[in-house]
Amino acid sequence: MLRLFYAPGACSLASHIALEEAGAHYDATMIDLKHGQQRTAEYMAVNPLGRVPALVTDRGTLTESPAILAFIAQSYPDAKLANLGDPFAFAQQQAFNMFLATTVHAFFGQVYRPARHADGEAAAAALKARGGEVLDNAFALIDQRLADGRPYVHGDQYSVSDPYLLVFERWFARGDAGHPERCNHLQPHRQRVEQRAAVQRVLKAEGLT
Amino acid sequence: MLRLFYAPGACSLASHIALEEAGAHYDATMIDLKHGQQRTAEYMAVNPLGRVPALVTDRGTLTESPAILAFIAQSYPDAKLANLGDPFAFAQQQAFNMFLATTVHAFFGQVYRPARHADGEAAAAALKARGGEVLDNAFALIDQRLADGRPYVHGDQYSVSDPYLLVFERWFARGDAGHPERCNHLQPHRQRVEQRAAVQRVLKAEGLT
Repeated sequence: MLRLFYAPGACSLASHIALEEAGAHYDATMIDLKHGQQRTAEYMAVNPLGRVPALVTDRGTLTESPAILAFIAQSYPDAKLANLGDPFAFAQQQAFNMFLATTVHAFFGQVYRPARHADGEAAAAALKARGGEVLDNAFALIDQRLADGRPYVHGDQYSVSDPYLLVFERWFARGDAGHPERCNHLQPHRQRVEQRAAVQRVLKAEGLT
Repeated sequence: MLRLFYAPGACSLASHIALEEAGAHYDATMIDLKHGQQRTAEYMAVNPLGRVPALVTDRGTLTESPAILAFIAQSYPDAKLANLGDPFAFAQQQAFNMFLATTVHAFFGQVYRPARHADGEAAAAALKARGGEVLDNAFALIDQRLADGRPYVHGDQYSVSDPYLLVFERWFARGDAGHPERCNHLQPHRQRVEQRAAVQRVLKAEGLT
């Protein structure tokens, strides 16, 4: 039995969707980030970094979205959620997920939580401004990738990269950073992913529909 | 034939060492970051993000250290550079590498290149200060992990996580951020890794000895 700790709409949404797509037997427990539940002793015992997602297994706890997504894909090979058995294709998918983690997520972080990066209001304003610029560049690269008409991030085959990108398409569409209106191919991708039955179930479970 | 693009002592050092440990047939090409070679049209054609490492294969180019490290480990299974065939153990190793990428590397980034994150001298000072605090916390967790006497990051078995950690142990030891003197177990780990024959060859090739 797996237990996923998540916050609604956070990057943990990708792991939540992957578990549902895989047909995994799991339980999902919400962590209330707004009221600091991630910093309680109870949750810090699960993940000392106080972040979601955390996936508790009978062998221990996994953290970091790309690692959890690879674990789910490898543990449920029939769901075809990654290109297993082909180290190059697998690495390409991992590299895309890494780019989402180290660039897209990281710069949303400095937009939404500048105080994590530096103290002071002037620094916060400068972090938000630069964050928007970096996100514009990053989403332009992703938009260009989707411009060839491929339905999913890596082509015709849906993979864990799609719900992971969905997380950030949803954040970008809020309009708090950068210029989402410049990207024409994110919204169709988002709709395609959100129409999947497993994704619908998870969006409902997280209270996002 | 593989071609690695690297900069001496940059995070690409981990991929360089992994290739050497694996006994891969590869060529290493230096990119001069100080003179902006990563932003030349020639290199941007290799990696549009203008970063190292980039690993060019006959099927295309891979980026992002944890993805390249997983690719090398999976492509040369005899070298036993990752726990292959065990999705949970593999994910634990990936999660550690992700932590190095998204936290340790990211916060060294805001110490060494604050202008990437925000404009202005006040912001730069605030970014460096906070960067040091976050790095102290991150290295405390890593130091604690090594405190049980294990020779390598994941126990008795050397893996790609060891040269990846080595990169940041070397950066931390420079003393530009945080308090490396508080960590007692990083230096012995660094020495253990640096004494390996493959690591010695790469340090020499990158001009670091």
